Amino acid sequence: MSGQAECSPGSARKIEQLIVPIGDDLLSGAAEIALQGITVFKSILSGADINKPDQLKADLEFASLKLIDAQPAMASIFNISNSLLKAIASATSVNSIKLESDKVLDQYEKLLCDSAAKIADFAFDLIPPGEMVFAYSFSSTVVSCLLNARAKGRYFRVACSESRPSMEGRKLASHLASGGAEVIYTFDSAMGMILPNCSVAFMGCDCISTPGLVNKTGSFLLALACHELKIPLYTLCDTSKFVSEERFFEFENHQRPGTDVWADAPPEVSIVNKQFELIPFDYITGLVTEKGVFTKAELAKYIAKSIKDTSLLDPAPQLLI
Amino acid sequence: MSGQAECSPGSARKIEQLIVPIGDDLLSGAAEIALQGITVFKSILSGADINKPDQLKADLEFASLKLIDAQPAMASIFNISNSLLKAIASATSVNSIKLESDKVLDQYEKLLCDSAAKIADFAFDLIPPGEMVFAYSFSSTVVSCLLNARAKGRYFRVACSESRPSMEGRKLASHLASGGAEVIYTFDSAMGMILPNCSVAFMGCDCISTPGLVNKTGSFLLALACHELKIPLYTLCDTSKFVSEERFFEFENHQRPGTDVWADAPPEVSIVNKQFELIPFDYITGLVTEKGVFTKAELAKYIAKSIKDTSLLDPAPQLLI
Repeated sequence: MSGQAECSPGSARKIEQLIVPIGDDLLSGAAEIALQGITVFKSILSGADINKPDQLKADLEFASLKLIDAQPAMASIFNISNSLLKAIASATSVNSIKLESDKVLDQYEKLLCDSAAKIADFAFDLIPPGEMVFAYSFSSTVVSCLLNARAKGRYFRVACSESRPSMEGRKLASHLASGGAEVIYTFDSAMGMILPNCSVAFMGCDCISTPGLVNKTGSFLLALACHELKIPLYTLCDTSKFVSEERFFEFENHQRPGTDVWADAPPEVSIVNKQFELIPFDYITGLVTEKGVFTKAELAKYIAKSIKDTSLLDPAPQLLI
Repeated sequence: MSGQAECSPGSARKIEQLIVPIGDDLLSGAAEIALQGITVFKSILSGADINKPDQLKADLEFASLKLIDAQPAMASIFNISNSLLKAIASATSVNSIKLESDKVLDQYEKLLCDSAAKIADFAFDLIPPGEMVFAYSFSSTVVSCLLNARAKGRYFRVACSESRPSMEGRKLASHLASGGAEVIYTFDSAMGMILPNCSVAFMGCDCISTPGLVNKTGSFLLALACHELKIPLYTLCDTSKFVSEERFFEFENHQRPGTDVWADAPPEVSIVNKQFELIPFDYITGLVTEKGVFTKAELAKYIAKSIKDTSLLDPAPQLLI
């Protein structure tokens, strides 16, 4: 695919401007980030010059790389980009590029939007009536599950914590409270104090492969505490987050400046500000997807199968460029 | 002791002014808070009217209650106050009150100051050369142990986290770094990411009794993670922190405004801001005191013995007032 045309400096600047806010977005969950990525591609497609198919391909390729760079932990972004580049590989006109791209983007948009409702239905039975549940970080899937259960008349309380340093826990608490859930909010290290009162814990997920899953930092600490306290911990996410093992460790690239954690730290203190971390499957009770609730064994089977598949969700080991 | 005189409104105001900063101090460790309490008593004693022993007793009683109210989790404050009130119970002149008080205060001051060095010597062998150790919250005892080991030529790295919402982890990091230790600093929920690289974890302690120990919130989460990851966790503190079970749960009274955690939270969100929490002994590998390293069993024996003792450190069930 590459070698045909290069993204012009003007296009590159425009695309980068579209992607900057996505890279800086530390509050949105993976499904929201994926939808933002789709919007970027749609914007590029709608502004394409009908006479320059190679230019459009180059722009889409450039946008894919920039989007993946902006949010390296977000598997959906990678899968959408990869699927789109594969779909347009043999297209020769702007119209056929648009047609193929729209198919991919619409398919993912539908998957992202429909999955939330299906996951909410599967998760409903996991929310014990009258109990306290714990939710970590921000995930639009977790919010929709909890508010769906509340709307169906299930009464429960949700405990959550702030999620330093980005504080997306505040977004979670606000969304849940404005949706009618009873919310108890505390700081992250008070998790240990509040978890013994919780019957179940939920979190979203940014990326899944055979070694485990990747989510916002703090998820592993939650998982350790849940395991020790024998509290079931469920991850809620759709299958657009599945990637090959080769792609899996890209989340390590998502580091933020130490000054976001401590602006005026003494120069001798080294600050670690990694936004994402790995949670081995052994710590997860189940993975709730739009295809049902997977245990560790079922998940391993599904990953093995889906990697062999040639479906849209096939996690290719690398970009086709 | 009560019923003889009441603290005058003027004295009460002065004493309250001395104690306000102690109540607001969320950065200092228990040993530092205890030394501040001693300073309050000394200030009252030095300003006493030689002709009003009952007034002095009333002032000391008032100060004791206010100090305990200001820092209900700090066992040393309770024990110093209690010992002082017991010591002056039968004194009838200002001079004898001063004499008895000074004895108690000097004894505690010596205990607090001498213990740090003894604990540092016992803890030295627990710091593995060339490894990373984790330290939580701020404890002057932990700082002195780590810097003592560094001064003795033991090379190691210290990982610590910020300790929201008071951020006393910054004080810990700064003290350690300026003392020549190599410090790695991160946010609290990244504990799970950093702990697998640590060989041992240390924390201070504010209060100990048979059910376990009380320390800054986050300690239980650290303890859960260490237990799950099989990382030894030691508590460093002197025996002035021992109290009866009856006194033990006073730490529950130490709640701070929710606005310290989230200033502009939606009104429907309930905020929990408890500064201290209980860590059962089962999660602690050992307690390093000035009398040596205690295991859970040794500690239970010591507590049973020291409660029966009539020593200065006898944790009386309640104030003698």
